[in-house]
Amino acid sequence: MLIHSASQLLTLAGGPQRGAELGRLGAIADGALLIRGETIAEVGSSAELLRRYPDEPRLDAHGRAILPGLVDPHTHLVWAGDRAAEFEMRLQGRTYLEIMAAGGGIASTVRATRAASREELLAQTRARARAIFRAGTTTAEAKTGYGLDAASELNQMQTLLELDAEGPLEIIPTWLGAHAVAPEFQDNPQAYTDQISASMLPELAAWWRNHGGGRPLPFVDVFCERGAFSLEQSRQILEAAKALGFPLKMHVDEFENLGGSRLAAELGAASADHLVKTSPEDIAVLAASQTAAVSLPCTPFGLADPAYTPAKDILEAGGLLALASDLNPGTAWCESMQFVLALACRYLKLTPAQALAAATINAAAALQRADRIGSLEAGKQADLLILSVSDYRHLAYRFGGNLVETVIKKGRVYTWPQESSPA
Amino acid sequence: MLIHSASQLLTLAGGPQRGAELGRLGAIADGALLIRGETIAEVGSSAELLRRYPDEPRLDAHGRAILPGLVDPHTHLVWAGDRAAEFEMRLQGRTYLEIMAAGGGIASTVRATRAASREELLAQTRARARAIFRAGTTTAEAKTGYGLDAASELNQMQTLLELDAEGPLEIIPTWLGAHAVAPEFQDNPQAYTDQISASMLPELAAWWRNHGGGRPLPFVDVFCERGAFSLEQSRQILEAAKALGFPLKMHVDEFENLGGSRLAAELGAASADHLVKTSPEDIAVLAASQTAAVSLPCTPFGLADPAYTPAKDILEAGGLLALASDLNPGTAWCESMQFVLALACRYLKLTPAQALAAATINAAAALQRADRIGSLEAGKQADLLILSVSDYRHLAYRFGGNLVETVIKKGRVYTWPQESSPA
Repeated sequence: MLIHSASQLLTLAGGPQRGAELGRLGAIADGALLIRGETIAEVGSSAELLRRYPDEPRLDAHGRAILPGLVDPHTHLVWAGDRAAEFEMRLQGRTYLEIMAAGGGIASTVRATRAASREELLAQTRARARAIFRAGTTTAEAKTGYGLDAASELNQMQTLLELDAEGPLEIIPTWLGAHAVAPEFQDNPQAYTDQISASMLPELAAWWRNHGGGRPLPFVDVFCERGAFSLEQSRQILEAAKALGFPLKMHVDEFENLGGSRLAAELGAASADHLVKTSPEDIAVLAASQTAAVSLPCTPFGLADPAYTPAKDILEAGGLLALASDLNPGTAWCESMQFVLALACRYLKLTPAQALAAATINAAAALQRADRIGSLEAGKQADLLILSVSDYRHLAYRFGGNLVETVIKKGRVYTWPQESSPA
Repeated sequence: MLIHSASQLLTLAGGPQRGAELGRLGAIADGALLIRGETIAEVGSSAELLRRYPDEPRLDAHGRAILPGLVDPHTHLVWAGDRAAEFEMRLQGRTYLEIMAAGGGIASTVRATRAASREELLAQTRARARAIFRAGTTTAEAKTGYGLDAASELNQMQTLLELDAEGPLEIIPTWLGAHAVAPEFQDNPQAYTDQISASMLPELAAWWRNHGGGRPLPFVDVFCERGAFSLEQSRQILEAAKALGFPLKMHVDEFENLGGSRLAAELGAASADHLVKTSPEDIAVLAASQTAAVSLPCTPFGLADPAYTPAKDILEAGGLLALASDLNPGTAWCESMQFVLALACRYLKLTPAQALAAATINAAAALQRADRIGSLEAGKQADLLILSVSDYRHLAYRFGGNLVETVIKKGRVYTWPQESSPA
């Protein structure tokens, strides 16, 4: 298939973009690309590719912008129930402690997720996966973490593998049994930490050999924060995971700096995520490492908290910055990476080009998949978007809508009637 | 037609909601409503209406929430072109003066709008009208104000009347020739003010008699702000408009308090809009008047400005608070009143119920149409939404998506496949 006549074909070619490099779009005016099966075969100008492949089936982009499918490297996709009542309580002035006392917070999602049948959990998660895909995310990381016991966590993981197999959204799974201290261990967080490192992680490795379907091992992630896991507990879990061969991720510095970003860098984690309270010294350490810095601007937005990731400082230090949605039922039920771009320009002060690179090739790097997704280059997976507009900057300039008209995933075309207004 | 089996049928019955009253949803569990032609004939429980009207054609809401169509009482719907380049320049650190020097700001939209053909202006505006409708707004106010000369302003007005006649979005027009000082009068704003009051407004009144199609007179609005129109100039224009019988609106206190909200109250304007820098004394005057207080949270959001309308103070003073999008190409290209609700809860600290009332019955009041739209009551126009979820609070709890699955406008049903995930 030959897709042609893109006003802008943004290739994002040339690999992940560190520091001041961020924002290199690799734009081709009046661009075209040739797809063979699930793969991009060639990228070039419409004039050249139309001349060289006269008999190829064609898809005319009619002067709209084409870009790589958005990659969301941090979601909590799989849960049951909702926390709308808790959202309302916060607005009525109830404190965090009052909400906890009323059974709210992450514990309420753990109860609902444990209680849901396999079918319910699958159906509720599938609906979100479809909404995400509809909004232009072609690959999403997705974390367990609302089970907090061995069986419930594996049930969440099984749901993610089934949805990934079902498609069209491609799901990169992460095990987050260390999302919070399990309710059974409230009085003894260290005992839960020991159980994770000594028993749940080895069980996960064994389970994966039987159920992983030949996929690479999932990421293992820890929420390193006061009230969740201390720096030492995080180290214990991540070192155990690393010894078992799992690639690593971390939640760090969302509300307090416990030193998590240094630990992520030291252990060679794929990414350190949140990064709101990160110090200049920690930013320097992270930027000098191979660990991607993932900012989640929907979370402070969702909480109306004015503190966002110091993204410009991360770029000045030469860091590899990526963007993600943090989709979750507590702070950020946001299914649109387009909205993440709109926030990143306004609150992280990125340009539209920087935000787009952080949500494509750099987001792929945060998932250690930059060799396969995140850019439009010969040999890469054919994951791309055709917008309803001719200028990609509208993805960030506008907000609250959906400018994705066609999603192509592994070479298959999904299209919807236009909803937001073209330029 | 009988619509039945709504989990929540939110009627918003009982008229506009002042001060502490705000948030009265008039919810009916397992609700139903009967529509005859363009009008709501009855509202009640599903059990009762299904029993009394057994032969009526039915539309099953399948346990989803039903609410009045959203009403957007402040948009700049009709313009040509875009300002994505200016958005990018701001993020690259260019100052307002540099952007002006590069031909940016409202002047650039005036140039593009004057230069556009009738067909182009209609096509670009229609696309936005459809996107707004798709997102659940069934009636939108829409202002001229990118013409700034008699003919161009009337051309914008003509476009609005054509789109209103075409439907399905109902458009309530406003003449905003006093949006900015016209480029031809940059050295003499008073001369433009004199031209508006002495000539453009009488011409508008005469034009309306020939082209208004029997509609009530449009609103006349003034942007009372430093750099636009002073308090005295605003008074001159609005008194001239009032003498000609036009109902009034004002843009006040967006960046500076010039005393506009008191003037709006004094002149009996339908609404005073923006209200960011409004003093407690002005809030008291406004709250004691018949003038609605319209907050536009997309504008500070679009500019990443932390200053929002002091909505809670307006409610404490007993004011009539409404919400609007301010859709415009400079600061807030947002086509979704759902996103306005999400912002209002987070940044104005309204509850979801308060935000919904401010975006339905109170928004209708800000347009002096609360007798006809904004609630689900027998005798009112059949404008309503069926969501993809069973709990209306998700409209504000989530963000960045679209939870409207079906829009009913004047009794006609418009439906789309689901895009955001149900609860």
